[in-house]
Amino acid sequence: MTTIAYLGPEHTNTHVAARKRFGPRATYVHAPTVEDVFRLVEREDANYGVVPIENSLEGAVTHTLDRFIDFKQSPIAIQGEIEQPIHHALILRRGSALSQVRVVYSHPQALAQCRRWLGHILPHVTRRETDSTADAVSYVLRDKPDEGRAAIGRIELAEAHAALKAISIPEQRENKTRFLILGLGSSRRGRQNKTSVLFSLKDRPGALHDALVPFKRNRINLTKIESRPSKRQAWEYLFFIDLEGHVEEPRVKRALKGLETSTTLFKVLGSYPIGR
Amino acid sequence: MTTIAYLGPEHTNTHVAARKRFGPRATYVHAPTVEDVFRLVEREDANYGVVPIENSLEGAVTHTLDRFIDFKQSPIAIQGEIEQPIHHALILRRGSALSQVRVVYSHPQALAQCRRWLGHILPHVTRRETDSTADAVSYVLRDKPDEGRAAIGRIELAEAHAALKAISIPEQRENKTRFLILGLGSSRRGRQNKTSVLFSLKDRPGALHDALVPFKRNRINLTKIESRPSKRQAWEYLFFIDLEGHVEEPRVKRALKGLETSTTLFKVLGSYPIGR
Repeated sequence: MTTIAYLGPEHTNTHVAARKRFGPRATYVHAPTVEDVFRLVEREDANYGVVPIENSLEGAVTHTLDRFIDFKQSPIAIQGEIEQPIHHALILRRGSALSQVRVVYSHPQALAQCRRWLGHILPHVTRRETDSTADAVSYVLRDKPDEGRAAIGRIELAEAHAALKAISIPEQRENKTRFLILGLGSSRRGRQNKTSVLFSLKDRPGALHDALVPFKRNRINLTKIESRPSKRQAWEYLFFIDLEGHVEEPRVKRALKGLETSTTLFKVLGSYPIGR
Repeated sequence: MTTIAYLGPEHTNTHVAARKRFGPRATYVHAPTVEDVFRLVEREDANYGVVPIENSLEGAVTHTLDRFIDFKQSPIAIQGEIEQPIHHALILRRGSALSQVRVVYSHPQALAQCRRWLGHILPHVTRRETDSTADAVSYVLRDKPDEGRAAIGRIELAEAHAALKAISIPEQRENKTRFLILGLGSSRRGRQNKTSVLFSLKDRPGALHDALVPFKRNRINLTKIESRPSKRQAWEYLFFIDLEGHVEEPRVKRALKGLETSTTLFKVLGSYPIGR
């Protein structure tokens, strides 16, 4: 029996992504924070963990990146990734109309992604941030007739309650979230793989350039570079890169060996099949 | 008379940073969002705008970066930067004790920065996100005896109200925020300068490496690289770099000309004196 810890609560995007990958026979445990998902996997209370890492409109999920920085000794390795299209809906009580909406609740990322639509359709409503889209819906369930509450979230959140209805919010731009699958030990190797690396550089002119030379030389494509504060000293950074290839391929091995010589910190976070 | 638009409300870190630079004789206008600050400057309703760009613990302020991406034709240029140490305090009503606190309100960045302290001192309180630290304090002012509300914010926010007191939260790590000064036209040149550039690259192996070659060749130090989603296509990125030097120095001119040849989008956001 496989146990999957995911960033909850239920019916959120992370839950949907986890079920898409692990199917109906796995046991699902929802955890309130990214930190809790990592811990459940580290303590072997779950076989795998699922956390968001990046959205195509809002960018990196910094909580997840920073967990890799804050616990550099963690035995967790990235086992895979899941890509999930995001469709938002405006969720309100059955019988209430769009014109009655006065407050919209949602997760900050969902509010940000629907900023333009809200500006056009509901320009005068108050926006309130919640910890999750599921929390936002709980505010709507406690709505009183004159409060005019609505939430933004997946259509599934409305379908779970007979008292609610959902109005689809049209997409303006490609909105996808990428999730990481966390586990202990190394992942199975796929046909096409990706490797994620965390490193820091000596502070001198050309340091980042020099770090990238081994990838250029070995014709390895970087799909992603992300910088994050080191948190030890202001304006000192760590880098996350994703590259195409598996850590056991000779050219990847050579490139990573080359990178390592110019770093002060170096950790391979995982080699895993590219997800779609 | 100089008018300064800043990300408000009053007494927040951005306000303190703006006053530090422009002094008591300027007129200050607070704007509710980063977008409003940009617009006030673009319409010449303010001579300068002040917005946060980066915190040493939490990283980039993505709203500010994305405004540069969303309005590439904006006439705004970065005129300077301000660095500001951040000291947080727990703000509660006079007469109430730490042991009575049940809910802590604050801006998500402040809550994140005090996560560890809250975990030790107030492990069981509920954390509620607000739009600003000043908003958080307004919740404390409306506190009823049994609610146990507190806020996290600058000590100045408590000093503005006789009913409030502040308990200093000890710093664990270097916590500073960097602010940008926005304006029209180019900035005066300082003794030591910095140049900020926004660009995008062709998608091919070695593209980022090749883009950095001109800086290495001209011995120009990059102090910062940040990637952001293009928002036009999933997993396509734009880059922000800060480099040491002024756009009118020949070696910087040469390097930027070299960079431009490998980009699909290229914009100098400003050359300005390095702030401390």
